[in-house]
Amino acid sequence: MTDPVLVELTRGDVVESAHRGAVAVADPAGAIAFALGDIDRPVFPRSAVKAIQALPLVESGAADAYGFGDRELTLACASHCGEPEHVETARAMLAKAALDGSALECGAHWPSRFEATLALAREGGAPCALHNNCSGKHSGFLCTCVHLGIDHRGYVAAGHRSQEMVREAMEAVTGAPHVEDNQGMDGCSIPTYAVPLRSLAHGFARMVTGVGLPERRAAAARRLVTACMAEPFYVDGTDGADTRLMLAAPGRVFVKTGAEGVYCAAVPELGLGIALKCDDGAGRAAQAMVAAVLARLLRGDRDLSETFSKMARPPLLNRNGFVVGEVRPAALLAD
Amino acid sequence: MTDPVLVELTRGDVVESAHRGAVAVADPAGAIAFALGDIDRPVFPRSAVKAIQALPLVESGAADAYGFGDRELTLACASHCGEPEHVETARAMLAKAALDGSALECGAHWPSRFEATLALAREGGAPCALHNNCSGKHSGFLCTCVHLGIDHRGYVAAGHRSQEMVREAMEAVTGAPHVEDNQGMDGCSIPTYAVPLRSLAHGFARMVTGVGLPERRAAAARRLVTACMAEPFYVDGTDGADTRLMLAAPGRVFVKTGAEGVYCAAVPELGLGIALKCDDGAGRAAQAMVAAVLARLLRGDRDLSETFSKMARPPLLNRNGFVVGEVRPAALLAD
Repeated sequence: MTDPVLVELTRGDVVESAHRGAVAVADPAGAIAFALGDIDRPVFPRSAVKAIQALPLVESGAADAYGFGDRELTLACASHCGEPEHVETARAMLAKAALDGSALECGAHWPSRFEATLALAREGGAPCALHNNCSGKHSGFLCTCVHLGIDHRGYVAAGHRSQEMVREAMEAVTGAPHVEDNQGMDGCSIPTYAVPLRSLAHGFARMVTGVGLPERRAAAARRLVTACMAEPFYVDGTDGADTRLMLAAPGRVFVKTGAEGVYCAAVPELGLGIALKCDDGAGRAAQAMVAAVLARLLRGDRDLSETFSKMARPPLLNRNGFVVGEVRPAALLAD
Repeated sequence: MTDPVLVELTRGDVVESAHRGAVAVADPAGAIAFALGDIDRPVFPRSAVKAIQALPLVESGAADAYGFGDRELTLACASHCGEPEHVETARAMLAKAALDGSALECGAHWPSRFEATLALAREGGAPCALHNNCSGKHSGFLCTCVHLGIDHRGYVAAGHRSQEMVREAMEAVTGAPHVEDNQGMDGCSIPTYAVPLRSLAHGFARMVTGVGLPERRAAAARRLVTACMAEPFYVDGTDGADTRLMLAAPGRVFVKTGAEGVYCAAVPELGLGIALKCDDGAGRAAQAMVAAVLARLLRGDRDLSETFSKMARPPLLNRNGFVVGEVRPAALLAD
């Protein structure tokens, strides 16, 4: 099956580039409310499922034991962009478990936010593992290990108890098997498993409704998603796409991007979960796709729907600030 | 027509993302030696045609009048990455025409090479128009204006004599009309025109053979392409894809990338021109595509062909330096 073109980039009156992809919207029973493209082909969700991967942090009691509030829980679900608040929050999380950045096994990289990289360079600094966009998630893994008395060393390996807990949560919430055959290694060295968009959308419908989850897990899911919606800056930093999308509808939509053009999202008031992938991995297209899907699902709120429609169609500026084109949903997605 | 998948990105044993595209290889008569996908759909070549856009600089006599050698000519054809040598060469070119960076109308941006941006930030600097990857091309435009006694102000506009000269060269070399209907504005504010890959490939076969061009133009084309092959660092800087591809076969291949997944290239010894576009605009895919096409065309030189095959298949490393997958030509392109 060839996925349809869902996003176009125009320059003048010409379509310069086009992005194909697939979208699944599911209810908590797994029924598909809306779909485009092949939603049964396995895709790596990458960072889009961090909220599910953070369930053991809450379920184990570690989050309560260390007194984590919305910001810490959000950072555990985040692909933050290395701004000072993100780095300091990760550092503080680790300190609660008597650890520091040297325990992180995610690798280091310069902050994802360009301005944060410039600031760090200007002060003569260099990036460490705390700047890694996954440092909050990894701090969550480490805190869970320490709280449970598990040796944290090697916690990124598929065979470590930490990743076994994550995998159990992922399988239970999405209903999809996570096995060696569909396993890859993520940017931060933990395993990532390719599963159908259908299963991911179903999983996020469960995350925001609790339907089909044991009570303790449903409560943990609600707490994590609510935290992210309350503190979007701790998900994606200043001007991040996830931050802007969640700020547009405070407490009403959850979104989380993943590398290679993935988004998982949910609209709690509708009880719907969303999962999508741009086939070529482009983040700009995935952002337009998730905004367009939110505009469609929230048509009942005309103002909000228009806000998301606008976010799905950002102008393209050149080096002199002239508008030279736009990114826009293709007809199939815009209608 | 749906273009075929030409490049895949794998993670573990799974294809994570896929890139569609089209490729045209033409001889100087315009006969197609090899093609994949739709080569008749107009695409914006963007910066991939800078060598053609630099023809007036040589043909007008400006390059000789100002004593430009290979480095200056190359920079006029380049999307450089803002390293100090690039910035200083652009500054020196302008000085020959008694101008400075303030005459540039391309806009400013931080150096494309990350290390150059870090160095600039560390010394407390800020980017100016000289750091713009197009500053060499624009310096060429300005020098041509001054040499010909044309008022250079507003030289980026489609109606300015500078862009009329560029358009005449583009039409003559590619054989494709450049009109308002297929006009867009480029990142640096000059016009860019969407033309078929077939025409671009034909144009680059002419550029390296001179066939079908007036003698003066043929000589200018040879001089520009030869300069780029002799000074690839001035095309794309340290570790740039164009630099690496041209260093792999000194004096034997010409390549030039353009934004949104375009490459134009040529193999003088075969008299062939190449033009390709990744439909979704991904540079990583376009790089794999051009390397794979060069490997195919140069099969007669087994070692060189293998070098390009390897460059078409770069490993994908994660934040800890582990190999997690690869970018690779799809079967259709690899065979």
